[in-house]
Amino acid sequence: MKTQTNDYLAIEPWSITEKGFHPDRSRVSESIFSLANEFMGIRGHFDEGFGGSSLVGSYFNGVFEETPHIYPNRLAGFPERNHFMVNAVNWLYTRLEVNGETLDLARSRVSEFVRKLDLRTGVMTRSFLWEVKEGSRLRVTFTRFLSMVQSRLGCQRIELEPLDFSGSIAVTLGLDFTPPHESAGRNFWNGLRKETRGGVTAILAETEGSGQKVFSAFRHTASSQPSGVSEITGDRGAKLAGVRLEFPLTQGVPLTLEKLVAHDIEKDRNADAQVFWCRALERTGGWLETTFERERARQAAYWEEVWKRFDISIDGDPANEQGTRYCIFQMLSTFHGVDPRLNIGAKGLTGEVYGGLAFWDTESYCLPFYLFTNPAAARNLLCFRYNTLPQARERARQLDCEGARYPMTTIDGTEACGVWHHGDLEIHVPAAVAYGIWHYVHITGDKTFLHERGLEMLIEISRFYASHGGWSPKTGEFGLWGVMGADEFHMMVHNNAYTNAMAKKTFEWTLQAIAETTLSAPERLAAVAAKVNLRKEEPARWEEMARKMRLQRNRDTGLIEQHDGYFDLPHIDLKALPPERKPVCAKFPYIKRSRLDWIKQPDVLLLMFFFSNDYSLEEKRVNFEYYEPRCVHESSLSPGIHSILATELGKHRMAFDYVQYASRLDLDDYNGNTSQGLHMTSMAAAWMSLVYGFGGMRSDGERLSFRPAIPAKWNSYSFRIVYGGALLEVRVDHRQAAFRAVEGGPVEIDVFGTKRTVGREGLSVELPAAAGVGAQNS
Amino acid sequence: MKTQTNDYLAIEPWSITEKGFHPDRSRVSESIFSLANEFMGIRGHFDEGFGGSSLVGSYFNGVFEETPHIYPNRLAGFPERNHFMVNAVNWLYTRLEVNGETLDLARSRVSEFVRKLDLRTGVMTRSFLWEVKEGSRLRVTFTRFLSMVQSRLGCQRIELEPLDFSGSIAVTLGLDFTPPHESAGRNFWNGLRKETRGGVTAILAETEGSGQKVFSAFRHTASSQPSGVSEITGDRGAKLAGVRLEFPLTQGVPLTLEKLVAHDIEKDRNADAQVFWCRALERTGGWLETTFERERARQAAYWEEVWKRFDISIDGDPANEQGTRYCIFQMLSTFHGVDPRLNIGAKGLTGEVYGGLAFWDTESYCLPFYLFTNPAAARNLLCFRYNTLPQARERARQLDCEGARYPMTTIDGTEACGVWHHGDLEIHVPAAVAYGIWHYVHITGDKTFLHERGLEMLIEISRFYASHGGWSPKTGEFGLWGVMGADEFHMMVHNNAYTNAMAKKTFEWTLQAIAETTLSAPERLAAVAAKVNLRKEEPARWEEMARKMRLQRNRDTGLIEQHDGYFDLPHIDLKALPPERKPVCAKFPYIKRSRLDWIKQPDVLLLMFFFSNDYSLEEKRVNFEYYEPRCVHESSLSPGIHSILATELGKHRMAFDYVQYASRLDLDDYNGNTSQGLHMTSMAAAWMSLVYGFGGMRSDGERLSFRPAIPAKWNSYSFRIVYGGALLEVRVDHRQAAFRAVEGGPVEIDVFGTKRTVGREGLSVELPAAAGVGAQNS
Repeated sequence: MKTQTNDYLAIEPWSITEKGFHPDRSRVSESIFSLANEFMGIRGHFDEGFGGSSLVGSYFNGVFEETPHIYPNRLAGFPERNHFMVNAVNWLYTRLEVNGETLDLARSRVSEFVRKLDLRTGVMTRSFLWEVKEGSRLRVTFTRFLSMVQSRLGCQRIELEPLDFSGSIAVTLGLDFTPPHESAGRNFWNGLRKETRGGVTAILAETEGSGQKVFSAFRHTASSQPSGVSEITGDRGAKLAGVRLEFPLTQGVPLTLEKLVAHDIEKDRNADAQVFWCRALERTGGWLETTFERERARQAAYWEEVWKRFDISIDGDPANEQGTRYCIFQMLSTFHGVDPRLNIGAKGLTGEVYGGLAFWDTESYCLPFYLFTNPAAARNLLCFRYNTLPQARERARQLDCEGARYPMTTIDGTEACGVWHHGDLEIHVPAAVAYGIWHYVHITGDKTFLHERGLEMLIEISRFYASHGGWSPKTGEFGLWGVMGADEFHMMVHNNAYTNAMAKKTFEWTLQAIAETTLSAPERLAAVAAKVNLRKEEPARWEEMARKMRLQRNRDTGLIEQHDGYFDLPHIDLKALPPERKPVCAKFPYIKRSRLDWIKQPDVLLLMFFFSNDYSLEEKRVNFEYYEPRCVHESSLSPGIHSILATELGKHRMAFDYVQYASRLDLDDYNGNTSQGLHMTSMAAAWMSLVYGFGGMRSDGERLSFRPAIPAKWNSYSFRIVYGGALLEVRVDHRQAAFRAVEGGPVEIDVFGTKRTVGREGLSVELPAAAGVGAQNS
Repeated sequence: MKTQTNDYLAIEPWSITEKGFHPDRSRVSESIFSLANEFMGIRGHFDEGFGGSSLVGSYFNGVFEETPHIYPNRLAGFPERNHFMVNAVNWLYTRLEVNGETLDLARSRVSEFVRKLDLRTGVMTRSFLWEVKEGSRLRVTFTRFLSMVQSRLGCQRIELEPLDFSGSIAVTLGLDFTPPHESAGRNFWNGLRKETRGGVTAILAETEGSGQKVFSAFRHTASSQPSGVSEITGDRGAKLAGVRLEFPLTQGVPLTLEKLVAHDIEKDRNADAQVFWCRALERTGGWLETTFERERARQAAYWEEVWKRFDISIDGDPANEQGTRYCIFQMLSTFHGVDPRLNIGAKGLTGEVYGGLAFWDTESYCLPFYLFTNPAAARNLLCFRYNTLPQARERARQLDCEGARYPMTTIDGTEACGVWHHGDLEIHVPAAVAYGIWHYVHITGDKTFLHERGLEMLIEISRFYASHGGWSPKTGEFGLWGVMGADEFHMMVHNNAYTNAMAKKTFEWTLQAIAETTLSAPERLAAVAAKVNLRKEEPARWEEMARKMRLQRNRDTGLIEQHDGYFDLPHIDLKALPPERKPVCAKFPYIKRSRLDWIKQPDVLLLMFFFSNDYSLEEKRVNFEYYEPRCVHESSLSPGIHSILATELGKHRMAFDYVQYASRLDLDDYNGNTSQGLHMTSMAAAWMSLVYGFGGMRSDGERLSFRPAIPAKWNSYSFRIVYGGALLEVRVDHRQAAFRAVEGGPVEIDVFGTKRTVGREGLSVELPAAAGVGAQNS
């Protein structure tokens, strides 16, 4: 695992700065300088167009195209339809022409290139000098942000200052639906209508297959009057709308243009396009009645509040501090819980790989971040699952099961994953949803959610496992045969430890929820039972299945076998693997993975994190020391969990390496694929590595508990979380851990195993020797 | 398993006759009346065109189109390219017009429809009365055959007899490259050139992707002079060549046209099309210098010789006799060993499903038929594997293995099977090739083949298994993890019994072949060892791997576990499965198959057939009685093997049901999918069910052995096989089994465990009581 910073980007506390233009880094920087606001996202591509390698990417959360899965032969239960977040309108479309030359950094002479993302304001600027001819230099500065306050709004500013000449410039401002969806090699939009009227240029387009519609409209202002204005035409036809403006340029006088763009979407394929056009024109007209500066101020205020509540500071390690802040910034940009019909794609809104699809990572890796920073957002993520319960029920039917089978990958709740990956075998996904429900209710105490939505989901998920599983004719145990666990190297196994344990938990949570609702809201239980036609014998069956669930846990050592027969798999020594054979996923044929005892990502170890209280420290050590050397970490889900457990086991050097990997995975492009988009799940894991890892937080006990530690390299660090109605600050240095309720409180927590009450006045606890000295050990 | 004849086709000893035209049966009949001659095949579609449901199918053995496999994500080792036998020129293209009406059985008024395939001559005729207008009837008779003597030649005759009117008729004769490849929904041909000159109409076309070329040319004769001749034109353009002929019709006087069509193919994509055109024009010109009658006589003589040597007669069961003869006819039509670059597609040359691809069925199910009827053809099938050894080596490399990995499905030796089916896990395929080599050399004693080709293949296949396998850390056994066995319901298992046993045999055969060659042809061994760079330690490693191969055989009962953990799979009672849930493959989701103890086809039982001598009768009984009730037989490979073992175990009623299923599978469309093409492998299994089944033949011992039995319903049956240089006839009735060397001999065989010598004078052996009385038992 590579964890060396590459020094390409400056190490700064509150910003990401790229100096100099390097075409070979262009796509990586496009990903890193992506912006999003949950409603939409845009990559850091150049406003003015670029003749070099670029992914001009603009995505609207939940707006997808669909294509049929192609199989030589379609068997029963094969998913029929693929869907993916589709590349949409490039609303930053700009062209600059001076002296007959169109600016293009692939050809034009430029210098003093600087691109900067300000994490405190969410604003990205890019400026450089364009030598339009010998001795004639134009300073070009683009500024952009996506409003976190009015999410339909994107804002762009263009400043053009001729340093040593006067002349004229043509500026084209447009809305461009022509960029291809790169991973499909084609464009999926049909332009339906466009128009420039009353200072507003608008365009409406529709996807070919799914019939989803995106409407965009912009209004611009300029610091001086144009000498010419025309609507643009050309071969992009109905897919490009815009205006061409000609301006005189006066030496030393900046010309400033501001373009505010508002968007509206219609996902119903049957919605009438003209009706939508009229509605969208009116709505966006309202949203555009503002100014760039006003929106920029609101944006800065939004982020100021975020950082006040949720900053993580690390004294003594600016690289990791920057990386961690960047992760928080991008996580909140991708999702902050405004819309319960949205979820979190594996690459957020920053690229096309993984198709903008949400995985089980949402509940297992991302949910804790929201649960402890913005519980309402966590609730909305679970509402997404409730809203897509009908699709999960339908999928269970298709797979000859009862209940609800949440999909491996999805945007709209239907299964997107085709047979090539055998995602249908990853039946642990519904259990992750159950885990999310339990975790949310356990931490927030939100019984209303449990009664209104959680209970129904839990019942349907339990039903799924009950109907999917079987009974061993040899031992009489209940189990789940023919599955893929969290570890995707072993694709079709029986009784995967993680899956069985999660199914057992699901049965137990469901029975607890039924018991709780019986007491506190019997009428609600009756309503749910009637709605889902709960059969009288079902809870007793689930109880028996949970009790008899196969879990291969060695009675003496506590070592858990990852699945039936795992310990009999031929061994491969990963330390002896030559570097040219890594990464394993690329350098070994896919069918070889299932034949050896290597694993892609934590499986058994995941249980020891989720359910920390269920395992003794010694059991954790035995399992960690067995599975960690067998793990190739070829999932961004892997290092974070290892980091957390390594900290708990006093392996702080190892933990630190894992933390560093997660916090700067994209900034330093450790995996060499940041060009494809950001690793959102890894960003969530980076936050977890800090809070659950060094912070030593655990959230599966009766109270939130902490066992903080600190890496030798750091002087101190701090983070804030929402818990029990309070905003709790945790500050750790080499001497002590200090807890304080910044807002609300007092709350009860466990610190190093002792119950403590934390109020406004705060509480300091000395770090035990192990946490200090051990920090130097590997 | 359905085994009721449907009485649609007349039960006749030497022909297949369909009376009356039934559009809903049209596609099934098209398959049944398919003709082939190894070089090419044509479905029984109507010469004159048909507006109803039809698959106009014309295939050239080994001529394929290729398309890329489409995956959302391509991982290392994924097969890149699909390829399939591509629908080509309809050289029977005919149009008949009278009174402005074009004959079309979907619309025209026809009566007295009779279609007949004569198995003794290989000629198919179809005749009917066409009422061209009230009271004006034209008797139309089409005759066709594909020459078994000159395989480039297809022959068509059209007889037109006006019964009660005089008038005129326009006859169009053509070569049509426009029919779509139905399973792809499109046509893959580009017409390159066409021409009518000197009485010959020729056309050349090329596939889009693979660049393979097919040239067709025809010459026609007519019993009277046409009143008009013109070349055809029209919207099919460069893909259709032909002539339109106008003839007067005189009441009671038949007009006869004969069309001889010759074909040439060029598979090299780089071959120059014009050079090929010139060569093909010259070659086909020569092939066309013959007459319909002359070729028909040669065809009849060919088949007469076949039946003299290889007929199977069954006295007392005309339906099974007809079915068995039909199987022999179609097997020999599909392949009779002329070209060692060709193989046997799962549906022969009769349809598009399975893409004309050859499977491991060739060596495991088809080879014995050829081995005992036409050993030179058997040798050519193995030469196909030798010729494609480079592709198998390359595939092994791609899969991170050594040696040679023969493909799951192929036409040209490369792997066609994509990831959707996980055929890459079916690593038992190379072992089936090794089995074929061993079986062929064992029976024929052809050491030259062993030295020149077999040894090299065996070494490379052993290497493949040595590099694919691993060592159990628990038991120290060698094994094969992560595979799919012969039973395709359990897709990714460890140490599949069939696969492990076959790999063990492969190691042993290889070591034997090395030992034998060391003695008899040391220079040849040295040459092969040098060619493949045989390392000194390899044979010793294979010996150890064979010795330590995991085979889970219960010491007490002999019951073999199909794979690690199979006995722990939850049980499903197939008898309790309601009819609406069959076939399992269609009615249950694909992922459910691996979770239960049902199996698709024999796996362990296959070993007991291949290696009869290795297992006691009691072991066979134990395994048969365990696995037979768990088998759903959803592979046409299944009933034949069950039939053979059931006979051996005295379960004759069960055996008889299985035999009937195989022999008339297509004639009675038991599986409801004969419309897609004929089940060639099942036809081979039908022959085996007779010869190995009731004939009780076994070919894995020192000598060929027989334990004949006879079903209660039959009076007697007989078959002939080639063995030890003799043509051996076996006649069995309820009293005795009679053996006689019709040609050659004497040869030594075992009959009921006793060594006997069979010469021209013959030998009769009384059937033991079990074979007679037991015949009534189920």
